[in-house]
Order: sequence, then C-alpha cells, then structure tokens
Amino acid sequence: MNIENKIHELGYTLSTPPKPLAAYIPTVRIGNLVFTAGQLPFENGNLKYTGKVPEEISEEEAIKAAEICALNCLSVIKAEIGDLDKVKRIVKLTVFVNSSSSYVKHPKIANGASEFLVKLFGDIGKHARSAVGVSSLPLNAPVEIEMIVEV
Amino acid sequence: MNIENKIHELGYTLSTPPKPLAAYIPTVRIGNLVFTAGQLPFENGNLKYTGKVPEEISEEEAIKAAEICALNCLSVIKAEIGDLDKVKRIVKLTVFVNSSSSYVKHPKIANGASEFLVKLFGDIGKHARSAVGVSSLPLNAPVEIEMIVEV
Amino acid sequence: MNIENKIHELGYTLSTPPKPLAAYIPTVRIGNLVFTAGQLPFENGNLKYTGKVPEEISEEEAIKAAEICALNCLSVIKAEIGDLDKVKRIVKLTVFVNSSSSYVKHPKIANGASEFLVKLFGDIGKHARSAVGVSSLPLNAPVEIEMIVEV
Repeated sequence: MNIENKIHELGYTLSTPPKPLAAYIPTVRIGNLVFTAGQLPFENGNLKYTGKVPEEISEEEAIKAAEICALNCLSVIKAEIGDLDKVKRIVKLTVFVNSSSSYVKHPKIANGASEFLVKLFGDIGKHARSAVGVSSLPLNAPVEIEMIVEV
Repeated sequence: MNIENKIHELGYTLSTPPKPLAAYIPTVRIGNLVFTAGQLPFENGNLKYTGKVPEEISEEEAIKAAEICALNCLSVIKAEIGDLDKVKRIVKLTVFVNSSSSYVKHPKIANGASEFLVKLFGDIGKHARSAVGVSSLPLNAPVEIEMIVEV
Repeated sequence: MNIENKIHELGYTLSTPPKPLAAYIPTVRIGNLVFTAGQLPFENGNLKYTGKVPEEISEEEAIKAAEICALNCLSVIKAEIGDLDKVKRIVKLTVFVNSSSSYVKHPKIANGASEFLVKLFGDIGKHARSAVGVSSLPLNAPVEIEMIVEV
C-alpha cells in the first residue's frame, strides 16, 4: 500500500469513488490498460470547486481542483484493480480547463494533477498530457480530467 | 445479427457510414481495439441537427443527436469488423457538446449516446466516458462523439 | 530514413522536440502504441502561430500551424522510437482548434495535419480523427494536436 500511504502523506484520503453523473461507468479495463471516465473535483460527494478560470475561480484554486480530479481518477482505478501499487505506468492525461476565451495558462492548472502524480508514483507517474480550454464543463466544474494507466 | 436487430427495434437503421469530412478515415483497428473518428449526427447524408445547446437547439433534440452520433460510430465500426456482434466491449466515449459558456448539463446530453449503447449491448455496452462543452463544432453540429471498442 | 527524407522534401526539418510546457513528458510507449502529449505549433523553440481562427489568424495560417503540430508529434515520436520508419500506423489524431464560437470549418484546419501525414506515410498514414473547436489553448496557440501511433 505504498501509494495509498503517500496519498495520506500528501494530506488526502481516497474516498468512495465519485458516482458517475449519468449512464456510464467510472473505468473500463482492456488487457493491461485502464481507461477512466472524466473526473470532476468532487470531495465527499460535493463538488469542491466551481467556476471558470480565472474570472470565477483563481488559478491557485483551479490547481487544487486539478489535483483532486487526479485523486478521483486514482479512486476509481483502485476500485477497478484493488491496489494502486499495481499501477505500472500513468500513460496519459487529458485535462479540460473551464476557462474564458482569452486564457492561455492551461498547463499551469494541469500541473496540479501532473505534479501530484509524479509525487506519488515517481518516474512511472510521468505521463503524456493534453491540456485545453473548454467553454463549459458539467456542473460548472473548473477542471475535468481523464486518465489512461497501464497495470 | 443480434445487435442490428436491436438497432431496428429501437427505430433506427444502420445506414452507409457517414463520409469523413476530410482527409482521414472513419476507423483504425489496432489489435483488438477499434478507434473511430469523431462522428456527427448525420442521417442519410444530411446533418439532422445543428446549433448550440441550449440556445439554438433544445436539450431533447441534442439528446437525439447524441444517439445518432453513437449510431454512426456503430455504422463505421460495422464497416471495419463486418458484424457488430463481434464487439466485446464498448470501452470509451468522448462526447463534445457544442454549448454556450454557461451550460452545465453535458452529462444529460451525453446520456443520449450512453443509454442507447446500454440498450443495445447490455453490460458490455457500459463504458467510461468524458463529456465536455466546446465552443464550436464542425458544421455547427450540436454533438460530436468518438468511440473506442474492443472486438 | 525514408520518412525523414520525405519530411525534408516537404520543406521541413525535424528539430529538437519541443519541450513540454510543464510537468509531463512528450510521449509514453505502452506495448506497440505510442501516445504523444498535445503538441503546439512550435518551430525552433518559438510558437510560430498564435490566435483564434478565423478572427486573429487566417485559415491558411492555421492549416500550416496544424501541419507543424503534426511535425512536432513526429519529432517526439522519433525521440521515443529512434527512427520514424518504425511507425507501422498513424492510429488517431485529436485536433483542438482555438476558434470563435461561430466557426464551423475545423476539418479544413485539421486537414493540414492529416494531409501532411498521408503525404509522408501513404496508406499507413491514414488515421481516425476528431476535430473540435475550443475556446482557448495554451499560449493562445491556434491548434493543439495529440497523436497515437502503432510501432
């Protein structure tokens, strides 16, 4: 349980996986790849952050939101594979940032997720990533993140 | 031909796969995975729905548009693998909703696709999914959906 | 080195892979698949094009930007696999076009990348593709492209 211990050291707890908002499931495993559904910054069943970056929510808060999205990806992956120590590689993140049309610092927000994963997993936490700005997200979440991992 | 029969029972017909709008192809199969190109709500060669949700097109119509996008994903998958009964698992949908910047109910629209797939495929139709709002889509389509399936 | 020769014939040089803007890496290889991070139209370390299509940058320039994004995907793939002639198939592109909310010709822009790849790779360059409009991109780039290839 190394990874879960590190999650605790970083001040977080893997909670019950956030329930999908709709008719889909949180993860699908095909062979050695696990695909997650897009995760929002839910904490204990509540959306912890909302709003567009940077008008309605600060960059600092959006970075924390990205961190929680990554944590929630790990929660649903744990539910799929039983133990996060079975993760061999974080393969890919897609980070959708709910932002105004003039915003240009999406990588800064996405780093909230990327740096969190590298703290937890070290070299195997290093991943390919796309970060883009979108005009709106479900429930007005500031960030939505999907992940592919190898197990 | 179980799946095709169910498609008919739901009132649809698998038509000739929509032609790509450009220099790409509708599907690529690598091993046991088929990746589709993003599909728009074309029906018999015409884009059946257009407009941004919810100002230019109602949620009810956008839900139907999502259903047709999913149907079109199945059309191009059938052209790749010959028979939809060979689908072992719907793995992942990415649902892009053409919506105004204040829209927050993207999962409701994406459910048009997700529920349709579960009606057709049952448990193996349950998939991971991301649904995001985008500021514009090709031809002003209300929804664009891409799919990964295991065969 | 057939592919690199063709890249030169088309007037381009594979430069040093663009450095990621943040805490992630340019590629991850899992088995026979290579996933790239989203690439921007950097050339020799500078973002060659910026702005939203079509107000701030013309379609013609955005098409060239898409071409350079595809070139940069190839640069990072070469760094991962050593020789682009090892590419067996271009599997999938996701093309994010930084565009105004009324823009509808995203496929035209994305063709800059798709046609370039088919010129280089012929039939194995034919790929599945999604092209969507987004409200903003990192550094106000006009296009961001991510790629999956089989090696």
